[in-house]
Amino acid sequence: MTHRELLVRTHSKEECLNITNMVAEAVSQLGKDEGICLIQVPHTTCGITLNEDADPDVIKDILRSLKNLVPDRGNYDHLEGNSPAHIKTSLVGSSVGVILEGGHLLLGRWQGVFLCEFDGPRQRRVWLKII
Amino acid sequence: MTHRELLVRTHSKEECLNITNMVAEAVSQLGKDEGICLIQVPHTTCGITLNEDADPDVIKDILRSLKNLVPDRGNYDHLEGNSPAHIKTSLVGSSVGVILEGGHLLLGRWQGVFLCEFDGPRQRRVWLKII
Amino acid sequence: MTHRELLVRTHSKEECLNITNMVAEAVSQLGKDEGICLIQVPHTTCGITLNEDADPDVIKDILRSLKNLVPDRGNYDHLEGNSPAHIKTSLVGSSVGVILEGGHLLLGRWQGVFLCEFDGPRQRRVWLKII
Repeated sequence: MTHRELLVRTHSKEECLNITNMVAEAVSQLGKDEGICLIQVPHTTCGITLNEDADPDVIKDILRSLKNLVPDRGNYDHLEGNSPAHIKTSLVGSSVGVILEGGHLLLGRWQGVFLCEFDGPRQRRVWLKII
Repeated sequence: MTHRELLVRTHSKEECLNITNMVAEAVSQLGKDEGICLIQVPHTTCGITLNEDADPDVIKDILRSLKNLVPDRGNYDHLEGNSPAHIKTSLVGSSVGVILEGGHLLLGRWQGVFLCEFDGPRQRRVWLKII
Repeated sequence: MTHRELLVRTHSKEECLNITNMVAEAVSQLGKDEGICLIQVPHTTCGITLNEDADPDVIKDILRSLKNLVPDRGNYDHLEGNSPAHIKTSLVGSSVGVILEGGHLLLGRWQGVFLCEFDGPRQRRVWLKII
């Protein structure tokens, strides 16, 4: 196996988990010095995004805003009832590329990596691949 | 030419086409064993997303929800009348990275690759590049 | 340093800057012939997207539509008052992959690269990495 898998436990129906440190540690274990790191979730009801790492209110505002855009109850056909989670996943995205340099993810000063849980709580997987 | 081009015909104004098998076959023909596969559309009124491959209602709900968010008629300046298609493209995205391992795209159990047509029907191109 | 940094000055609170030529020039200076180019912004209140390069009204419609989706004033907790900018950044995305071939970015006929400023005016950075 040439990629790396992280396991992440979420605790609410919806939350954005800051996984920056977890990802950074796994990346350093991969031992590559430079390249591009792809961070991918193999799920269809949670996404991955880069956003502000400093004030946790930012990520709360993002979740609330997404809920306003894609209301829990609406005219959905999918019988499992989690269509809003699927829709938010396609809005936020399932993978993100980040530059790697000097063995570290190259993030902006305020950037962190977040797993966006839209249909938890569950155990989620995050895959990392560097090339 | 070191990338691969797939041609995809769409049949409606808006639809999400499941191109997972098509992409998988082309990837296997590229003969690379591991890396990152970039799936890119060279268009500005259709996007590419990963989402649920099992129940087609999910993708219908995504399209309907996007239409609610970006209504067909609104206060748009672009005279061609397809601004909603451009906007949805930037929401969903024009390219997505997927890990490649053992010669196969590494997707989650429920994940499929979808071309999101927002201004069809047309012939669309999908580009694949593995590194 | 194996990536390249571009400096971009934005002039309004919100604008989408066409940085296609700037990116193309920097890519050609990197001297690589083929691969994948990752275009990443190290910010949390501006994003990066591919969309129509021809009629500037398209990008204006995108900005206006995003403002409708995420209103300037709303129920936001983040005290800095720029939560809408953070939310739009996660909708549009902070990095995008583009195929490189023959030393050039492989874009569709109408595709351009846009920096989406949501909390300007500021000086912004755009990072490029080719693998």
